[in-house]
Amino acid sequence: MIASIVTVGDELLNGQTVDTNSAWLGEKLNEIGVTLSLKLSVSDNIKGIIDGLSYASERSDIILMTGGLGPTKDDITKVAIAEYIGDTMSFSDVTYERIAGFFKASKRPMLEAHKQQCYMPSTASLVNNPLGTAPGMWMSHNDKIILSMPGVPREMKGIMSEGGLKKINALVEGSYIDHYIIQTAGVGETTIAEKINDIIEDFPPEISIAYLPGVASVKLRLTVKATQQELAEKLTQTFGNRITERLGNMVYGLGSIKLPQAIGKLCIDKKLIIATAESCTGGGIGHELTSIAGSSAYYTGSIVSYSNELKQKLLGISSETLSNHGAVSEETVRDMIHGLVDTTQCDIGVAVSGIAGPGGGTLEKPVGTIWIAIGNREKIKTRKLQLIRNRRLNIDYTIVLAMNELRLFIECNF
Amino acid sequence: MIASIVTVGDELLNGQTVDTNSAWLGEKLNEIGVTLSLKLSVSDNIKGIIDGLSYASERSDIILMTGGLGPTKDDITKVAIAEYIGDTMSFSDVTYERIAGFFKASKRPMLEAHKQQCYMPSTASLVNNPLGTAPGMWMSHNDKIILSMPGVPREMKGIMSEGGLKKINALVEGSYIDHYIIQTAGVGETTIAEKINDIIEDFPPEISIAYLPGVASVKLRLTVKATQQELAEKLTQTFGNRITERLGNMVYGLGSIKLPQAIGKLCIDKKLIIATAESCTGGGIGHELTSIAGSSAYYTGSIVSYSNELKQKLLGISSETLSNHGAVSEETVRDMIHGLVDTTQCDIGVAVSGIAGPGGGTLEKPVGTIWIAIGNREKIKTRKLQLIRNRRLNIDYTIVLAMNELRLFIECNF
Repeated sequence: MIASIVTVGDELLNGQTVDTNSAWLGEKLNEIGVTLSLKLSVSDNIKGIIDGLSYASERSDIILMTGGLGPTKDDITKVAIAEYIGDTMSFSDVTYERIAGFFKASKRPMLEAHKQQCYMPSTASLVNNPLGTAPGMWMSHNDKIILSMPGVPREMKGIMSEGGLKKINALVEGSYIDHYIIQTAGVGETTIAEKINDIIEDFPPEISIAYLPGVASVKLRLTVKATQQELAEKLTQTFGNRITERLGNMVYGLGSIKLPQAIGKLCIDKKLIIATAESCTGGGIGHELTSIAGSSAYYTGSIVSYSNELKQKLLGISSETLSNHGAVSEETVRDMIHGLVDTTQCDIGVAVSGIAGPGGGTLEKPVGTIWIAIGNREKIKTRKLQLIRNRRLNIDYTIVLAMNELRLFIECNF
Repeated sequence: MIASIVTVGDELLNGQTVDTNSAWLGEKLNEIGVTLSLKLSVSDNIKGIIDGLSYASERSDIILMTGGLGPTKDDITKVAIAEYIGDTMSFSDVTYERIAGFFKASKRPMLEAHKQQCYMPSTASLVNNPLGTAPGMWMSHNDKIILSMPGVPREMKGIMSEGGLKKINALVEGSYIDHYIIQTAGVGETTIAEKINDIIEDFPPEISIAYLPGVASVKLRLTVKATQQELAEKLTQTFGNRITERLGNMVYGLGSIKLPQAIGKLCIDKKLIIATAESCTGGGIGHELTSIAGSSAYYTGSIVSYSNELKQKLLGISSETLSNHGAVSEETVRDMIHGLVDTTQCDIGVAVSGIAGPGGGTLEKPVGTIWIAIGNREKIKTRKLQLIRNRRLNIDYTIVLAMNELRLFIECNF
C-alpha cells in the first residue's frame, strides 16, 4: 500500500514553519509497512489543493492531508476536498456536541467561527481529535482514501494515534510487521553501532535496524517484515534480546518508555523518594521528572538555586566553598546533595551546576562545563561534563545526562 | 515570479530526516519577493523525479531541487534532469579541478565515485559550492529554470548564499516584500480574529495576514507585497501599528521575541528580581525563564514544592491552609507568594498549584484546575484556570499562562 501526504498552508511555503508532521507520519506509516511515495505542500488556495489532491491520488492509495482546517483558514481544505470528490457540505451534530462540550468544560464562549468547524463533506466519517476542535475526516473517492487532519502537530498526532493509524492498518493485507524498540541513554549512535556490529551482520533479510538519535539518547528500532506472524515475532525476539543483552546498562527500557518513566518505575519498585537541586537547568530536571503521571509518589521537589544567595540559604553551601571552588565545582554539587538531603529527607538527591553559556565561561571553566552529583548521606557519585553546544542544547543535554546518572545510580546501588 | 521546490530522498519520506531545507529556502525566496507555490518530496527513483519535475514545471517559473546528488545516491537527480530536459551528460573539467584541489588540500585520496560527480548535463552552468564537492547546477528548459543542489543543509545554503539567490534575484523585477510580526499570549486565534476583523476588512490587496498559533499564544504575521519599497513599508507600518494598538496588552512584543525574553527585558528595564514557587509545573516555569541568556541578572530561583511537606517546610504554608482549602486553592498560592518573597527577597513572585492529571481530580476540583498567583508583600493577583487537556499540555499551558500573568503584572504595576 502506497501513501502520500498533502500539506496545506502558506506558512509551510514562506519559511515560517518547518514541517515536522511529515517526518512523523512517514515514520509511523513505515512502522505499519505502508510506503510513503511523495509529499506535497501547497498554499492556502482551493485550486492548488484540488490540483495537489489529483496529483497525489494518481500516485497513491491513501492521501494524508494536514493543515487548512480551523476558523482562521476558512476551513479551506475541507471545502476543496468536497469539491474534488463532488460532495456537498453538511452540518455534523456529533461534532457540534463535542465542540460545545469542549467550550462548556473550559467555561469559554463558543463563537460563530467554531460552529463553522461543524460543517464537513457529507460522506466524511469522523476520526476523533482528542486535543482540539477540528476532527479528522476520513473519505473515499475512486477507491482512494483521503484522511484530512488539522496541521497543529499535537492534534494531528492525537488523531493518528487515537484512530487514524488503526484504520490505515486495517487496509493493509498479508504482510506482517513486528517491531522491537530499545531505548538507550548516555552514549552516541556510533558507539552503539560498533558494539553491536557483529549482531547486525547476522541479520536475516527480513530484519532491519534504524538508529533514531535524540538528545543524549538513541532509540533503536528493529523492524521485521514477514509473511507469517510467528516468524516475525520469533526473529524480533531473538535479535532484540541479543542486542539488549549486549548493550547492558546503556539500555533504560524497551518499547515506548521514556527516561523519566523508567526512573519512576525504579523509584516505585525500590520504594525510593527522590529530589533535585538545580542550578543551570533552572528546574528542567524537575519538569521532566514530573511530566510522568503519578510522580508525586516518589518525587518530592526541587530547589532551583539559580543565585548563589539561594545556594547558601536553601542548600547551606558555605561561602568558603563558593569562593574557593566556585559555584560550578565538584565541591559545590557535593554540598548541594548534602543540603538537599537534609532539607527534603529524600533517599537520593540529584544536583547540577554548570555554565550553559553563551556568557560566563573562563579559560579554566569554559562554557559547557557542568558538574552533576547523585547520592545521599552514604554515597555520592559525581561526574563532570564538557559540552560544546549552544545554551539551549547544553541545558537539554544536562537534563538528560543527569537523569541518566540517577537511573544508573539506582540500578547499581539499590 | 513563482518558485517550487522538489526534494529528492527516501530519507525524507520514511521519517528519518525532517526537511529543514524547504523552510529555509521558502524564507529566503520570500525575502526577495519570490512566491513559493508548492514543494514536493519524491523518493530516489528516476521516474518519480521526472514526474515531479514535470508537475512543478507546469506550476512555477523556477524549480529548486535538493538532494539526490552525491556518490552514494548514484547522482540520480542530475541523470533524471538530463533525461527530462533532453540533454546528454558531459564531463566538467572545471569541476574536476575543483574537486581534485579539495582532496589535495584535505590530504585524502580522490575516489572513482568523486570523478562521477564531474559529469553533469551538458547545458548546465555551475553555481559554486563553497562547502562540498557537488556543485549547484543551473539549467533552463522551456523558459523554466532548474537549480539543482545537494541535500546537505550547509552545502545547499552555501550554494544559495554564494550565488544562487543572486542569480534568482536577477530574474525578479520590481516587487518588494515587507513583514510585521506581532506576538500575543493568553488569548486564542478566534478571539484575536474577531477583535481585528474590521481592520482586516480594510486591507488593501497588497497585504495579507497569517495566524500562527502556539501553546497559549498566537503569532500574527502581516505580509505586504508591493512594487515599491516605500509603499510596502508604509502599508506594513500603518496596519501593523493599528492591529498592535487594538490588541493592547494581549501583545507582548514585535518581531521574533519570545515570552521569557519579553519578561527578561521588563525585569531589566524596571530593575526587578523575580522568583517562582512551583507545584504542578515541577520547575517548568524556571526552566523557561532561564532559557534566556543572562537571566541570572533578574531570576533568583524556584522552590519546586511538589510535596505538601516541602510546601510547609520551604514556603511556610500552614497545615491549616492545606487541610481547610487544599494544596490547589487560592489561599495556598497566596501563601506560597508570601513564603517565596520571605525566603528569596524577590520583588515579584510567581506561584502555581494545580491538578495536571490524569489522576487527582475531584468533583469540586477536576483535573485541569490550576491556581496562579503573582505578587509581593504589597499586592497579589490570583487567577484560576480550568484546563481540559492532557497532563503534558495542562502543564505547558500553565507555564505559558503563568509567565503571561507575570508579564501583565509587571506592565500594570511597575
